[in-house]
Amino acid sequence: MPYVNIRVTNEGVTPAQKLELIEGATDLLSRVLNKDPATTFVIIDEVETDNWGVNRENVTTLRARQAAAKKAKA
Amino acid sequence: MPYVNIRVTNEGVTPAQKLELIEGATDLLSRVLNKDPATTFVIIDEVETDNWGVNRENVTTLRARQAAAKKAKA
Amino acid sequence: MPYVNIRVTNEGVTPAQKLELIEGATDLLSRVLNKDPATTFVIIDEVETDNWGVNRENVTTLRARQAAAKKAKA
Amino acid sequence: MPYVNIRVTNEGVTPAQKLELIEGATDLLSRVLNKDPATTFVIIDEVETDNWGVNRENVTTLRARQAAAKKAKA
Amino acid sequence: MPYVNIRVTNEGVTPAQKLELIEGATDLLSRVLNKDPATTFVIIDEVETDNWGVNRENVTTLRARQAAAKKAKA
Amino acid sequence: MPYVNIRVTNEGVTPAQKLELIEGATDLLSRVLNKDPATTFVIIDEVETDNWGVNRENVTTLRARQAAAKKAKA
Repeated sequence: MPYVNIRVTNEGVTPAQKLELIEGATDLLSRVLNKDPATTFVIIDEVETDNWGVNRENVTTLRARQAAAKKAKA
Repeated sequence: MPYVNIRVTNEGVTPAQKLELIEGATDLLSRVLNKDPATTFVIIDEVETDNWGVNRENVTTLRARQAAAKKAKA
Repeated sequence: MPYVNIRVTNEGVTPAQKLELIEGATDLLSRVLNKDPATTFVIIDEVETDNWGVNRENVTTLRARQAAAKKAKA
Repeated sequence: MPYVNIRVTNEGVTPAQKLELIEGATDLLSRVLNKDPATTFVIIDEVETDNWGVNRENVTTLRARQAAAKKAKA
Repeated sequence: MPYVNIRVTNEGVTPAQKLELIEGATDLLSRVLNKDPATTFVIIDEVETDNWGVNRENVTTLRARQAAAKKAKA
Repeated sequence: MPYVNIRVTNEGVTPAQKLELIEGATDLLSRVLNKDPATTFVIIDEVETDNWGVNRENVTTLRARQAAAKKAKA
């Protein structure tokens, strides 16, 4: 009866990738703890980059800096 | 001071139904544990069917199969 | 397929009361949204009163003040 | 390694305010528990006012009543 | 920067199994979404069987019935 | 009406520190979004170090390595 909540930033996760996450998390619980897939819930939350902070800044700013660094290198 | 979080798939829950959930959950905590409604929070999260997995598939696929089965019966 | 998470302070909730919460929340989702009880999860989290804050104080302090007020009245 | 989840009603929180919440929560954990900002996550969830209940009503209704009371006073 | 929360019933999960869950969930996010393990959090919550309801009963009762059925078969 | 959930590893957080977190988070929501402290909940979850993973290992292992590195330096 596990409940798995995966929270990621909302940056274009496709339905196919979401399905891979659902399958992978369900299989993980089945393999490690012998949990029944029929009662394993996997819920994916996509969070706007303005709403996710790490290292005292939001991910919007982090991504802009990463993109600028990449461009500077090229 | 309870906090109740209800997560359901995003499949057309109406404002009236949401209010019923809020009233019902608040009354439940009041009746069973004598909790004060003034400090009972009920938060409803509506999750896209692509983002909710059960039995190793997403609810989008589950609903399509259920609809097909219903149609085949008719 | 709902997931209901009920968070309350850890102040002697009995197994019978927990079961009432489970039954009540399951029935609520069944009645309002026609959700199947077989795939309705209800999870109760009991939180220490030191770890729950409201109105800028913890519930331990709140309960002590409420008890003192009650005693003063008697 | 803290994880801070801030849930508020969706009532026009600006990106600048979100950033203040992220900075403030990160600084709080750093100051009180000496946690490293580099591994402090702050996630803000904005919840529709129809989906947030307190005192057995939703925040949509609460806000309408507050606005009417304010208008009556003016 | 994913956050993965795995909630399971508290029924003797070993430290080694917890580590397998942590590794498996981290690898899943890395493989499917190319997320950096250094900022992937996995948090496991173990919930008492009295506090977890499914199908309108708690898991304590469910496990007792499963054990009785198994014994009857033997 | 904010709800703030702070999750940290269970490594000896004192009641006084928890109170500082409660006060700080309440003040933050009051200052930035003008939220009423009377309906601001702050809930602190303390998670065992075996149950918290980051960078594909649990915090128990991380702490042991950090302690060994510190000792080697001394």
